[in-house]
Amino acid sequence: MAMVCLSDFEAYAKKHLPKIAWDFFAAGADDCSTRDENILAYKRIRFRPRMLRDVSVMDIRTKLLGTEISFPVGIAPTGFHQLAWPDGEKSTARAATAMNTCYIASTYSTCTLEEIAAAAPGGIRWFQLYIHRNRAVSQQLVQQAEALGFQGLVLTADLPYTGKRRDDIRNGFRLPPHMKLKNLEGAFEGGDCSEYGLPPNSLDPSVTWNDIYWLRSLTHLPIIVKGILTKEDAELAVRHGVQGIIVSNHGGRQLDGGPATIDALVEVVDAVQGKIEVYLDGGIRKGSDVLKALALGAKCVFIGRPALWGLAYKGEEGLQDVLRILQDEFRLSMALAGCASISEIGRHLVQFSKL
Amino acid sequence: MAMVCLSDFEAYAKKHLPKIAWDFFAAGADDCSTRDENILAYKRIRFRPRMLRDVSVMDIRTKLLGTEISFPVGIAPTGFHQLAWPDGEKSTARAATAMNTCYIASTYSTCTLEEIAAAAPGGIRWFQLYIHRNRAVSQQLVQQAEALGFQGLVLTADLPYTGKRRDDIRNGFRLPPHMKLKNLEGAFEGGDCSEYGLPPNSLDPSVTWNDIYWLRSLTHLPIIVKGILTKEDAELAVRHGVQGIIVSNHGGRQLDGGPATIDALVEVVDAVQGKIEVYLDGGIRKGSDVLKALALGAKCVFIGRPALWGLAYKGEEGLQDVLRILQDEFRLSMALAGCASISEIGRHLVQFSKL
Amino acid sequence: MAMVCLSDFEAYAKKHLPKIAWDFFAAGADDCSTRDENILAYKRIRFRPRMLRDVSVMDIRTKLLGTEISFPVGIAPTGFHQLAWPDGEKSTARAATAMNTCYIASTYSTCTLEEIAAAAPGGIRWFQLYIHRNRAVSQQLVQQAEALGFQGLVLTADLPYTGKRRDDIRNGFRLPPHMKLKNLEGAFEGGDCSEYGLPPNSLDPSVTWNDIYWLRSLTHLPIIVKGILTKEDAELAVRHGVQGIIVSNHGGRQLDGGPATIDALVEVVDAVQGKIEVYLDGGIRKGSDVLKALALGAKCVFIGRPALWGLAYKGEEGLQDVLRILQDEFRLSMALAGCASISEIGRHLVQFSKL
Amino acid sequence: MAMVCLSDFEAYAKKHLPKIAWDFFAAGADDCSTRDENILAYKRIRFRPRMLRDVSVMDIRTKLLGTEISFPVGIAPTGFHQLAWPDGEKSTARAATAMNTCYIASTYSTCTLEEIAAAAPGGIRWFQLYIHRNRAVSQQLVQQAEALGFQGLVLTADLPYTGKRRDDIRNGFRLPPHMKLKNLEGAFEGGDCSEYGLPPNSLDPSVTWNDIYWLRSLTHLPIIVKGILTKEDAELAVRHGVQGIIVSNHGGRQLDGGPATIDALVEVVDAVQGKIEVYLDGGIRKGSDVLKALALGAKCVFIGRPALWGLAYKGEEGLQDVLRILQDEFRLSMALAGCASISEIGRHLVQFSKL
Repeated sequence: MAMVCLSDFEAYAKKHLPKIAWDFFAAGADDCSTRDENILAYKRIRFRPRMLRDVSVMDIRTKLLGTEISFPVGIAPTGFHQLAWPDGEKSTARAATAMNTCYIASTYSTCTLEEIAAAAPGGIRWFQLYIHRNRAVSQQLVQQAEALGFQGLVLTADLPYTGKRRDDIRNGFRLPPHMKLKNLEGAFEGGDCSEYGLPPNSLDPSVTWNDIYWLRSLTHLPIIVKGILTKEDAELAVRHGVQGIIVSNHGGRQLDGGPATIDALVEVVDAVQGKIEVYLDGGIRKGSDVLKALALGAKCVFIGRPALWGLAYKGEEGLQDVLRILQDEFRLSMALAGCASISEIGRHLVQFSKL
Repeated sequence: MAMVCLSDFEAYAKKHLPKIAWDFFAAGADDCSTRDENILAYKRIRFRPRMLRDVSVMDIRTKLLGTEISFPVGIAPTGFHQLAWPDGEKSTARAATAMNTCYIASTYSTCTLEEIAAAAPGGIRWFQLYIHRNRAVSQQLVQQAEALGFQGLVLTADLPYTGKRRDDIRNGFRLPPHMKLKNLEGAFEGGDCSEYGLPPNSLDPSVTWNDIYWLRSLTHLPIIVKGILTKEDAELAVRHGVQGIIVSNHGGRQLDGGPATIDALVEVVDAVQGKIEVYLDGGIRKGSDVLKALALGAKCVFIGRPALWGLAYKGEEGLQDVLRILQDEFRLSMALAGCASISEIGRHLVQFSKL
Repeated sequence: MAMVCLSDFEAYAKKHLPKIAWDFFAAGADDCSTRDENILAYKRIRFRPRMLRDVSVMDIRTKLLGTEISFPVGIAPTGFHQLAWPDGEKSTARAATAMNTCYIASTYSTCTLEEIAAAAPGGIRWFQLYIHRNRAVSQQLVQQAEALGFQGLVLTADLPYTGKRRDDIRNGFRLPPHMKLKNLEGAFEGGDCSEYGLPPNSLDPSVTWNDIYWLRSLTHLPIIVKGILTKEDAELAVRHGVQGIIVSNHGGRQLDGGPATIDALVEVVDAVQGKIEVYLDGGIRKGSDVLKALALGAKCVFIGRPALWGLAYKGEEGLQDVLRILQDEFRLSMALAGCASISEIGRHLVQFSKL
Repeated sequence: MAMVCLSDFEAYAKKHLPKIAWDFFAAGADDCSTRDENILAYKRIRFRPRMLRDVSVMDIRTKLLGTEISFPVGIAPTGFHQLAWPDGEKSTARAATAMNTCYIASTYSTCTLEEIAAAAPGGIRWFQLYIHRNRAVSQQLVQQAEALGFQGLVLTADLPYTGKRRDDIRNGFRLPPHMKLKNLEGAFEGGDCSEYGLPPNSLDPSVTWNDIYWLRSLTHLPIIVKGILTKEDAELAVRHGVQGIIVSNHGGRQLDGGPATIDALVEVVDAVQGKIEVYLDGGIRKGSDVLKALALGAKCVFIGRPALWGLAYKGEEGLQDVLRILQDEFRLSMALAGCASISEIGRHLVQFSKL
């Protein structure tokens, strides 16, 4: 089967992964309406493409907090990559580095941060943090990430508790015995690990904006808050001195009924007034989706499930295929819309008044 | 089969109930468009969830006319619970009391009010009234309810005549011989009972707002009017001194083509200007639906068909399961939206301008 | 099979009529989008029902140009009733008279006007006219109708040429040899009758508003123009002195892509400013559809295909069944919306601002 | 099978063409959403038809840049007609000439321009140009077209690179060995012809509006720019002195996510303020679609895929059938909307405020 577009990888993964793993990756909260909206919302946005512009030399590079990446698509933090491919996050790190883009490694990785760092030296990597009730665990992870050369700290803000994903409950989802949350080994020794490999309620639901100051006290890394969907929270993010926001609804896995991320993006972009960078994840399936997100103000987007499909297909190589397809599609979409470089992308490219 | 969400109970009930009973509970008027709109309307409402708020201590209690309930979901009045479970309304009363919430017992119960009251002493219960042409029947029921400790009187306003439910007509729906409308036994002795166990046209279609004064003369119970869908009627309710309104379209069983209750809610809430409490029934299937209704101004919601599915599954225990699932989902939705208590819920939680 | 609602009659007719006859009655122009819109548009209109109004005594009578009918639903002109039932239009006339409502007999009847008049003496009947190139034919029909006691003349304005109904072309639709356009026998003797039983292009496509004056010169009957969909034409109708307008798109059989009649109604009603009566046909399938049309300003509606389904079921008796069901549904819808008489129906009954 | 409407030809072609050829003609970019929108958008536009106007004499002729054609539908440029019918573009030329309308011959024809011109002397023909990196190739084609009597030069502006058409990639689409891009023979001798019969990247992606001046220097033919979708580009077209614009999205084969052409038309028409002619292609499937496009300001429309279906059915004869059906449908739609000549068509014919 030819792997022509991302949905080919999705079909492959659905066919070849164990059902319990596929279900875990595919899961959305409740009725999955927000998960599905993430995709549908792109289909409602119409371009206003410009013609007869010189697009013979295309430059699709951009910068994340000053660091150049090859194109504005990175890897969003997702857990348990060994469920998709034996080498797990090591493969992810290698693929992202090979494609010269950013990989946000999850707290819930099945490889250690050391393994991830060692797998692809010199790669652009951020570390995604859940804050545990046991703050020492989180503090240690942050400082370890910084020591290992991770260049950004992504705080997930939308998971005080885990969303209700029906299929995982029906399946009694647990990590297979040979997989571990390597970065948390020892932290929850011998306990009940029924909630995605962790004890129930191990995350701290009392985290507030003030904890940004606590994180700031732990690390010099830039802090990016992931999970913002409103202007009010965007303003709070600016006021608390973070360096970036990822507009995200956790792939529709947390609060069902929330907006598609592409629909929430404009509100957030307008609120930050260019003071910090705004990124987005959720629903990116084609190069033209990336173009729409950038037109509406995202500096970069991140892919979650498609990266896992790529891993499931052929590990590092499969993920590179996914990224390369997105890169080619994005470059082509830009050219067909009349843009030769990222700086030419803007709201004029979409029918903004109809959003 | 794992019972994970309310639609699992629906599937169970559809499979296990006799078709004639399932059809009766499921029925909507005419094309069932209002019945179905009750559900669809929730899917069109988008949250604006807030992040990084301390939701470690969740308080989901609220009050109905001053009486505390464990969470803002009660049991709407529906008829003929013995069609779902042998113990009928006695099981319903026990489950509601166990969950510390309000049960509105229907005039058309297959247990007597005494049996209901005795089944779960100390429970929070209201009595739903249809006014019959024979006013003495209704007067006696109201006074009996008050004497038995029911704490509110719910007048159904939207049934001067019974809506046209095609399946019931096709099925020739009647109560099985061993079931009786226990509260009306004797009242219609020996007559034709072809209309839902009653003689045709036994209800009084001449009831008007003035009959609120008549009811007031019969009882000291607070009066709640059920079936209001417009601001005009909401204002009349306030002017006639009732204590509460249930925004309801009778589960889509009366006038087909009326609005979804969640769509009518705001108009009613704005009209009453906080002078009385506003509740809602219709279409509640998930905890996030409850949150949407509260965000738009409902003080509490009531479930109709889902309660019957719970009864059909395992009687009192099944209904408790249904309530507990809703309670857990509601608490989680609140937390994921950034609210730790009911008082933090408001219109800011939904994309109000897009309603 | 119980005949509970109009779609039961539709299913019966589809099953029992010869395909060529069913296809002819069901046909819409081109893609049938206007035909289908006629139905879909009702589903988009929401009631604002009022509660606790005395609806114990219901009066659903209304008047057509001063003549009382039992309820505001008449029989729209449709052709070839013998395709549905052997007695053809004679059965239609009898059913309409039995139900005390208006029957608009078509130029393209398979019974003569004399037969129709004789079948149900004293019935309320209008005559629908197509103007033929041979004006003498039309003149004679008008004068015959008046002489036979028809009380109104309905000029069809939307058929300068016949719409393109694909199935009729595929089927090579022709009247069976034993059926005749009885009112036109002799007028087109021995010719090619390939276009719905008539020579091609027998209708006059040069008819204009000035021909209203010509018709006026032929008859004292009130003139009703059928097929108006815009305010401009509504104003012209008033200016040319007609007595009524039927908002119609010919059941979606003429210009595909035109509006649903219920969507065009308000524009026409507002344009005539109460100076003449406005009726509607197209898409009426339930009593609540009638209520919506009256709420938006129609004085009466007419049913086309449902009348044919009734005929196909059991001739006169079947059509009475259809009318009685609509009557019962309309009365019930009125009551459930809080109206005891036609005069209480108005725009306040629908969510007008959302049209 | 009766060929009643254009979708009959589509069904025939889908059944009888080799899959690889059908897929090539049917292909849209990416998810094909723009391709499909081209069709769906017409269904959202509602007519405001006028009645009782004299439509006995219909005149559907119009002019393209001063040259009369029999009705406002021409043949859009599409490639590789021999894939549909052995005689290829020669048949197309003959059919267009027989129907007295304009045929825009593609650069990517499988017949030479000489063959096309010779096949139907005296026909109204424009030549569609892609500008190749090797400008000499393009210059020679333009001058040859002018010498052969082509009367217009259509510059395709929306293909700096070829859109991503998934099925063509999966199929490994290539021209069969016996077919050649006859007008480019010799230009790319012996090279890799994997991109639609041409070497990859043979087109010049550096073309800008300034190249209009270059084209102007090569030919006296009027220049029409094809592929404009925004007012900004429409204004640039006027400013650079072209004679016409074809609002086009290349049949949805280039940038997926762009607007339907009928949706982009008004913006372009308003921008040019009548200074040049505006045409449209994309999604025309019925005569009423033509009427909608003219009502919104197009001077003429062009059909792409339907012409190929006609060729696939019966070559020249099949394409004439397609054109004749469209002509009959268009004339009928005009009459049913109350227009006897092209000049009577305008925005008043559609519900403009609802676009």
